[in-house]
Amino acid sequence: MMLVKGTHYRTIWLEGSRVRMINQPLLPHSFEIFDSTDHQETAAAIRTMIVRGAGAIGAAGGFALAQAALEAPEKGFFDYVDRAFVTIRSTRPTAQNLFYSLERVLRAIKAAGNPALSKRAAVQEAEAIADQDAAACKRIGELGKSLVPDPARVLTHCNAGWLAFVDWGSALSPLYAAKREGKKVFVWVDETRPRCQGAFLTAWELGEENVPLALIPDNASGYYMKKGEVDMVIVGSDRIARNGDVANKIGTYEKAVLARENDIPFYVAAPISTIDWECRSGDDIPIEERSEDEVLSICGRDKHEELKSVRIAPSGTKARNPAFDVTPAKYISAIITEKGIVKPHDLISLK
Amino acid sequence: MMLVKGTHYRTIWLEGSRVRMINQPLLPHSFEIFDSTDHQETAAAIRTMIVRGAGAIGAAGGFALAQAALEAPEKGFFDYVDRAFVTIRSTRPTAQNLFYSLERVLRAIKAAGNPALSKRAAVQEAEAIADQDAAACKRIGELGKSLVPDPARVLTHCNAGWLAFVDWGSALSPLYAAKREGKKVFVWVDETRPRCQGAFLTAWELGEENVPLALIPDNASGYYMKKGEVDMVIVGSDRIARNGDVANKIGTYEKAVLARENDIPFYVAAPISTIDWECRSGDDIPIEERSEDEVLSICGRDKHEELKSVRIAPSGTKARNPAFDVTPAKYISAIITEKGIVKPHDLISLK
Repeated sequence: MMLVKGTHYRTIWLEGSRVRMINQPLLPHSFEIFDSTDHQETAAAIRTMIVRGAGAIGAAGGFALAQAALEAPEKGFFDYVDRAFVTIRSTRPTAQNLFYSLERVLRAIKAAGNPALSKRAAVQEAEAIADQDAAACKRIGELGKSLVPDPARVLTHCNAGWLAFVDWGSALSPLYAAKREGKKVFVWVDETRPRCQGAFLTAWELGEENVPLALIPDNASGYYMKKGEVDMVIVGSDRIARNGDVANKIGTYEKAVLARENDIPFYVAAPISTIDWECRSGDDIPIEERSEDEVLSICGRDKHEELKSVRIAPSGTKARNPAFDVTPAKYISAIITEKGIVKPHDLISLK
Repeated sequence: MMLVKGTHYRTIWLEGSRVRMINQPLLPHSFEIFDSTDHQETAAAIRTMIVRGAGAIGAAGGFALAQAALEAPEKGFFDYVDRAFVTIRSTRPTAQNLFYSLERVLRAIKAAGNPALSKRAAVQEAEAIADQDAAACKRIGELGKSLVPDPARVLTHCNAGWLAFVDWGSALSPLYAAKREGKKVFVWVDETRPRCQGAFLTAWELGEENVPLALIPDNASGYYMKKGEVDMVIVGSDRIARNGDVANKIGTYEKAVLARENDIPFYVAAPISTIDWECRSGDDIPIEERSEDEVLSICGRDKHEELKSVRIAPSGTKARNPAFDVTPAKYISAIITEKGIVKPHDLISLK
C-alpha cells in the first residue's frame, strides 16, 4: 500500500458521483487531487493525461462510464451510456486497460437491465476493477521480486509505478517488494522524453519510498548497459498482443534491443487486463501520436518555484511525437503477471 | 560556405588578440557573437560550451594557445605558454580535436624559437588549423554525398553541422552537398538530451538551409527505424580510436545498435584530425562526466520570449550525466573523412 507523506492514496477513486484523482502533471512540483464531476470531464482528464498510466487509465475509464450511468436520464438511459462509452473509448487509442474496463462496466450495465439497477451495477463493477488492479499489482510484486538480484541495479523507463495503476504499480512493484524484503535495490531512471514521466513521476515515487536512484537522459541507458552497470531492465505495458509483442512508452523498444545486445534480462510487468487477446501481434496495435507541443516545449519550476513552460526549439520547427512503440516478443525475457511469470510465447497459457 | 541570414559566418575566428565566436548556448533563441580577450576566457568558453563541437573546439584550442603566446611576457615566455597549454588542454577530456590543435600550435611555437617569431607562428598555425578544418569538412561533403540516396530520410544525433566545426560541418556536410546537387533530403533530428543540441542547433541550422526536418525525442528514433522510415544514420565524432571505435555524443551507441538491428547504414563523418592514432580502442577513450544540473534543468524561451531555466526533477534528485559514449567499430558501416570513405577496420590506411 503506497503512502504519500504517511497517508495512503490510490491514484484514482469514486466518491458519490465525483471521480477524484491525483493530478499527475503537477507532480513532482505539487501534490493535488483533481475532482471530476461528470463523465466528460473524466474523459478529458484521460485525454490530457491528468490521469495516465495503464491501470490508472483503466480505472478512470470504468469510473467515467459509471459516472455516465449515474448522470444518465431515465428516458434514453442506454443510448446515453452507449454515447458515453464511445466518448471515453476515443480518448487514448493504444491503452488496452481502458477498453478492458469500459467493456466490463458496459456489460454490467446492460446485464442489470434497468436504469436503477444499472447505476448500482456500474459503480460496483468500476470499484471491482480498481480493487482488482490494486490486488493484481500487489501480486505482481510478490511474484516478480524473485527475479530481482541482491544487490540489484535496475533500469526502468517511463513510470509503471503505483502512479500508473491504482496502487503498487507493475514494473516498480517487484522492486518495492524486493526492497521491503531487505534486498539492496538501486534504480537507473530514464528521464523518458517527451513528457519526462521518469524525471517527474518515477524519481518522485522512488524518492518517497527511499529507493536510491540516479536520473539519466534516455540516451545514457545504453552506455550504462554496455559498461555492465545494469543487472536487469523492467518496464510496464499499455497493451500486450497475444503473441507476446508489447506496446509501451516510446523508447521501450530501444531499451529492449540494447538489453539483448548486452545480455541483460528484459522484463515486462503487467496485469492480465493489459493483454489484448483479440490482437494477434504488435503490428495490429494502433500507436497514438500526440501533439508536437509535447516535444517542442517542456514544463518545470523556475527559480521562483513557479511552474513555467519553455519552448526548446526554433519557432516553426516541425516535430513528431509517437507516444508508444512496440517491442517484439523476441526481445522480452519474461512477462510478469498476477497469474504467473511466463515467456512471451507462452502468454496464451494465462488465458 | 554557411550563411546566417545571408551573411557568411565561421563559428570561431581570431581578430587581433580577440577570439570571436558564435555564442552557441543562446541558439536558437538569439544569434550573438561572444568575444574572448585572453586564453583563460577562451578556455572557460570551451569548458562552459559557449563553443562546442569537435572541430570548433579544436579551432578554439588553437586560437586560445595563440592568444596565450600573444599575451605571454618576454621573460618566461615558454613557461607561460606551457602553463596555458595545460589549462586549455584540461577543459574537455574527450575532445581529440582540442589535443590535435594544441599540439600543433605548441610545436609551431617551440620551433620558432623566440617570443617574437613564436607569436607570429602561433597565430599562423592556429589560422591554418581553422582553414584546414573548413576545407576538410567541405571535402567530407563532396565525398559523402554519394552515400546519400535520393530521396533520403536521414537520422542524425546531436549537432555535427557547421556550428560544430569552423564551417560546413561533418555529418551534415554530405546532406548539404546532396541537397545542393538537387537530391531530396529529409532529416530526422534527435533532440539529444540533456543539452538538446539537436533541438537547439541542428534544427536551427537545417532550418536556415531550408532542409525539411522533424524533431523527435531521442526515444523515437528506434521506432522510425523499425517502421522503415530511416534510410541512413549519420553522426559526427569527438574522438576515433585507431581500431575504428568512435566516441560521440551520449546516445550515439544506442542509435548504432538500433541501426544494425534494422539493417540501416550507420555512417560517422569526421576529419582526420579527430582520429587519435595513439588510442588503440574505445576502451582507452576517457568519457567526460558533466554536471548533473544539465540533466535536472532545461533552458528555453517562456511565453514572454525570455530565456528561462526550469528544473524538471524533484529537488534533491541525483542524476548522472556522461557526455559521450563509445560506438564499437562493428556497428559502423563506414567512416567518411576528407581523405576518403573507409571501413572502420581500414582506418589505418588513412594514416
